[in-house]
Amino acid sequence: MKLLITGGGGFIGSRLARALLDRGHLGGRTLERLVLTDQVAPPEALAADPRVETRVGPLLALAPTLGTEGYDGVFHLASAVSGECEADFELGLRSNLDSTRALLDALRATVQRGGKPARFVFSSSVAVFGPDPAVPLPARVADTTLPAPQTSYGTQKLVCEHLVADYTRKGFLDGRSMRLPTIVVRPGKPNLAASSFASGIIREPLAGVECPCPVAESTGVWILSPRRVVEAFIHAHELPSGAWPTTRVVNLPGITLTVREMIDAMGRVAGRDAVSRVKFVPDARIQGIVKTWPVRFCTDRALAMGFKADTDFESIVRDHIENEKSKAVAA
Amino acid sequence: MKLLITGGGGFIGSRLARALLDRGHLGGRTLERLVLTDQVAPPEALAADPRVETRVGPLLALAPTLGTEGYDGVFHLASAVSGECEADFELGLRSNLDSTRALLDALRATVQRGGKPARFVFSSSVAVFGPDPAVPLPARVADTTLPAPQTSYGTQKLVCEHLVADYTRKGFLDGRSMRLPTIVVRPGKPNLAASSFASGIIREPLAGVECPCPVAESTGVWILSPRRVVEAFIHAHELPSGAWPTTRVVNLPGITLTVREMIDAMGRVAGRDAVSRVKFVPDARIQGIVKTWPVRFCTDRALAMGFKADTDFESIVRDHIENEKSKAVAA
Repeated sequence: MKLLITGGGGFIGSRLARALLDRGHLGGRTLERLVLTDQVAPPEALAADPRVETRVGPLLALAPTLGTEGYDGVFHLASAVSGECEADFELGLRSNLDSTRALLDALRATVQRGGKPARFVFSSSVAVFGPDPAVPLPARVADTTLPAPQTSYGTQKLVCEHLVADYTRKGFLDGRSMRLPTIVVRPGKPNLAASSFASGIIREPLAGVECPCPVAESTGVWILSPRRVVEAFIHAHELPSGAWPTTRVVNLPGITLTVREMIDAMGRVAGRDAVSRVKFVPDARIQGIVKTWPVRFCTDRALAMGFKADTDFESIVRDHIENEKSKAVAA
Repeated sequence: MKLLITGGGGFIGSRLARALLDRGHLGGRTLERLVLTDQVAPPEALAADPRVETRVGPLLALAPTLGTEGYDGVFHLASAVSGECEADFELGLRSNLDSTRALLDALRATVQRGGKPARFVFSSSVAVFGPDPAVPLPARVADTTLPAPQTSYGTQKLVCEHLVADYTRKGFLDGRSMRLPTIVVRPGKPNLAASSFASGIIREPLAGVECPCPVAESTGVWILSPRRVVEAFIHAHELPSGAWPTTRVVNLPGITLTVREMIDAMGRVAGRDAVSRVKFVPDARIQGIVKTWPVRFCTDRALAMGFKADTDFESIVRDHIENEKSKAVAA
């Protein structure tokens, strides 16, 4: 089978690629070809696999050709992050809306030429919920909660969910959208997402670096680990079409932790020194954004569909340490 | 002031144009220029007014130029109807999504060049509610009810609502979207909308023509008259920006009638002969669509904002008869 990952050079995209190559099959079929697209080249270890092809460039430009290549499945992860989209409105429209639309239309063209609709797993976000400052969210946000995006990023993700549902209804693809919690621990550098601190306060201290924490220790975060999100993408693809609701979208399960609980768990795994490297440096702008985010969800539907949350934060910290070690060995 | 009506050659657009020209002002400012765009030329009586300019062509092609013209207000009514969008997916995307996006981006460019954001009144639809066959609607649909479009038309309207809200949040326009009930009595010919019968069963008998009714007499319809919807567009424009919710969208008020109640009201106004011209000829396809439509709404917010429903169906029938008479005199 032939699969495509957009954003395949990114953090989650490249982990998903690694996981797919390692298992070698999906839904009972052998993986023969895995195409990775991104603005940057994927890690060399991926590119070296004979099953992998890479296409470096803007998705908007690549999309029409991708539509002629007959994919069995597409994982659409390419996206500008929330902070980028707020800072540069056109970038957000182009990267998150126009590129998705171009990809959907390319896949539609395949079907209109007689091809089979591809399974299409779309990476959406709980940012669709906003919330609207005038409308309090329920105690636990559910799949049936009314989205009310308050960012261009959240708006674009929601719009794409609706397009995925309509293209699916029309038989142009077999869409499956997942609203991702905050992914912790992200490796690499801090980014422009307001949630960047949630990984920073673990990643930096574990690397021996002091890290400012811009929010109060009582701040809650709705979390999923890199390991679990990769499993979720694979599971989303493998589920039969009929397991998905008409909306084609679910809120993924996660766990709710306060910043204090996250730091304490890191301390239990890595010791007091790591904990002492987190410095609380309140940032009113980031606090103002983060305090509005929903942190408690009812994800009964996703759980019934077989998606899984992490069981505890210590395991997430240990996973991160292992991953960093194996990177250091590979380098 | 300078106003634009897209779809200005259509039934509601041309009535709105007539009403604006007759009153001569909007929000306390004198109407100096009214530009009407449509695929067809507007009625001659409108085009003859020295304040009117017409642009005939696809909105997608006209939009970039419109963005350079400095409108104070825009009424965006141009749209393909639900039946057309289901029959021709690309037509729907082009007419309802891409054209709206092009118009929004043209208005954004005005602001980015230093212009003032235009008031932008968008004609949306209760078709956004679907409903999803797996998720029953509440007894009364409210502004807070989760949209679940089941047609490309409904999807495209909902997507545009979200874009209007985000462009408004960013200061590129001052958007106001209204979800219209079924407009009865539409003049002219039956069209491809599944709701076409709701006007047909009044319009055709009053014109002395027999009319098949494809649905049962107990079928409910959520109705607003042409007169009231024109008033709603004007009121939507005149309201201060702060009167609108963050979502920038409201469900318009309407009245709920069964087909039987509509026909009986027509009988009271126009006599038994008119009633006898309605022939019940069940059409399973149309019944299947219409029976899923929500017919009861809670529109407290719109009512508090000053939008008004019709008081009774007899007045709607009388209005229609008056309008047809004045057309006949003009011809």
